[in-house]
Amino acid sequence: MFKRAALWHEGVMSANRLAGPSIWLDPQDSGLVWTIDQRRLPHEVRLAALRTAAEAAEAICTMVVRGAPLIGATAAYGLHLAAVRADDRALDRDLRGAAAMLVSTRPTAKDLEWTVARVMARAAEGTTPEDKRRRVLEAATRLVEASAEACRRIGEHGLPLLEAAAQRHPGQPVNVLTHCNAGRLACVDHGTATAPIYLAHARGIPVHVWVDETRPRNQGAALTAWELGQCRVPHTLVVDNAGGHLMQHGRVDLVLVGADRITRRGDAANKIGTYLKALAAFDNGIPFYVCAPESTFDPALADGVTEIPIEERDADEVTHVAGWGEGGPSRVRICPEGTRVANYGFDVTPARLITGIVTERGVARADEASLRALFPEWP
Amino acid sequence: MFKRAALWHEGVMSANRLAGPSIWLDPQDSGLVWTIDQRRLPHEVRLAALRTAAEAAEAICTMVVRGAPLIGATAAYGLHLAAVRADDRALDRDLRGAAAMLVSTRPTAKDLEWTVARVMARAAEGTTPEDKRRRVLEAATRLVEASAEACRRIGEHGLPLLEAAAQRHPGQPVNVLTHCNAGRLACVDHGTATAPIYLAHARGIPVHVWVDETRPRNQGAALTAWELGQCRVPHTLVVDNAGGHLMQHGRVDLVLVGADRITRRGDAANKIGTYLKALAAFDNGIPFYVCAPESTFDPALADGVTEIPIEERDADEVTHVAGWGEGGPSRVRICPEGTRVANYGFDVTPARLITGIVTERGVARADEASLRALFPEWP
Repeated sequence: MFKRAALWHEGVMSANRLAGPSIWLDPQDSGLVWTIDQRRLPHEVRLAALRTAAEAAEAICTMVVRGAPLIGATAAYGLHLAAVRADDRALDRDLRGAAAMLVSTRPTAKDLEWTVARVMARAAEGTTPEDKRRRVLEAATRLVEASAEACRRIGEHGLPLLEAAAQRHPGQPVNVLTHCNAGRLACVDHGTATAPIYLAHARGIPVHVWVDETRPRNQGAALTAWELGQCRVPHTLVVDNAGGHLMQHGRVDLVLVGADRITRRGDAANKIGTYLKALAAFDNGIPFYVCAPESTFDPALADGVTEIPIEERDADEVTHVAGWGEGGPSRVRICPEGTRVANYGFDVTPARLITGIVTERGVARADEASLRALFPEWP
Repeated sequence: MFKRAALWHEGVMSANRLAGPSIWLDPQDSGLVWTIDQRRLPHEVRLAALRTAAEAAEAICTMVVRGAPLIGATAAYGLHLAAVRADDRALDRDLRGAAAMLVSTRPTAKDLEWTVARVMARAAEGTTPEDKRRRVLEAATRLVEASAEACRRIGEHGLPLLEAAAQRHPGQPVNVLTHCNAGRLACVDHGTATAPIYLAHARGIPVHVWVDETRPRNQGAALTAWELGQCRVPHTLVVDNAGGHLMQHGRVDLVLVGADRITRRGDAANKIGTYLKALAAFDNGIPFYVCAPESTFDPALADGVTEIPIEERDADEVTHVAGWGEGGPSRVRICPEGTRVANYGFDVTPARLITGIVTERGVARADEASLRALFPEWP
């Protein structure tokens, strides 16, 4: 499933910059999907090759890929791989099996079931096996491209937030705090929370990002710091505990985070600890925006704290920290052996703490009326 | 300065339980102070032997000892070691030098200068070198004993908070969340935040502690989990990001934390991230108590956020995580090489978020009038 990224290094990366999407179909072999093995970042850039729906599901389960939009995209391509590998007679059954397997990989991100449902609906419209395969590939490709385009638009709709902050203290960088990785690596491209940051940086607005480490898996330290570094966006790594202090002392202009699921009332599940940053932003009068595409919304849910399923993960993510040791990948235990652990992957930030939600259709207040105005097709 | 704790293991520890104080004079050699090398916990129990004031200062600087009351006690004994080692003619000069050196080791904890000032005042009352040495030893010993006794009383004054919680759901454990290590290892004995917990546990009140990992140095994972385990107090380790989620879901009855400096208005500096937990407790209507002895208060200060000095520490505490690897102590890098870091050691929780402050004299509201009623001798 994995290979060293030497070729990709030469082909896709240039001048030490990450360019292009974080998941793509092989140009020569449409039964092969490439993505980056995010477990090895920032220490090694390795590609993962996905050839079956099971490999796509495994990549999601084992966190080779993570981030709500990217696991949606991986599931879309996973269905395509299921269709490619299936016998004509088994196609419907294999697609249904792959859909169930992919949706069950992780419980919190809405994008997963949203994407799978759309691809499966397109497959159901097919008349022959070949027609179904074509429709699945078309749907998956279109959804992946649309996911990248949604993030690009989130960047455009979020840009005025940074422009406004820049105007408040001309010549000074706009200080954005972000939690976890809602960047290119969490999406097909651009990122959600990072999209306005990259766009501001490209437009010459000075921007500086406070990067939360994001225990237990350190996606901020490992992934956000890496991709911001690749794109030469100034940033400073801090422990998750530091954000409140920074906000108390006027060091944060704006908080931008992603989301894994947002209810119709605007409650947003995101990486565990996001709620604490929202509280600190609220306490210090700092704007707190959630950036997410349509696929992250779950209009069937109202109250996020009680209704959004929160994933519980393995204890060893808490008892051990993975990184780079003397000679390569390594990990250390940080607590006594046998220590009992609880490991919740996400928390829910109530809408009352969210200044606004930046979507590909514009910025909404975090309330049902504002969101329905952006998404009138919601049931 | 260090030796393996084999003897101490047999002598002071019994039945795998930590017993007795965390710093003590050698019974045979009054020019020798023993403490535990907390950098090795929970993986190895090693003692550190302090024979000079410089060694005491080094032990504070290098975090062999940490925790506001314990660094106060270490400084008190450090002055005693300075007095023991000094020539008669150099005694006053060496004591002044040692006092300046010890106070300069770390900026935030008030206990350090509070304790040093008291020992130095006693030394100044001496008439001969021998009399001064005797007074320094007496003062240091008395302050260290008083520090342990203050924590014991904090336990008694805090106990009703746990008893009240236990009565609200009989038969269920009282869930206390704590941040960092404000335990026996942070003090001479009992701990500050842990004193009510240990007392409740001893009195048969079922108690369960949510232990915040406490990045960057992981004092919760390494020290609090260890000492609660030694004393068989049920506990669960969580990442610093998790507390808000636990509180939203009714899993926390009470937050108890220590402090490094408290202003006369009740603003409390404590380990970075404490402010975020106070915000979450406030948002969820959960009592949030700071536990601290007299030595931690700084009545000269009013506004904690602007007036309390906050220590900035080395970047490698953030870029690397220390723990136990395959064959022994090890550390891993968790971010790209060269990542810029900010590392603030403490934050300030405003009095408005603090339900009360538990001291050796009783529980005060976090306001100047209530605190002055407990400490009428304040200027």
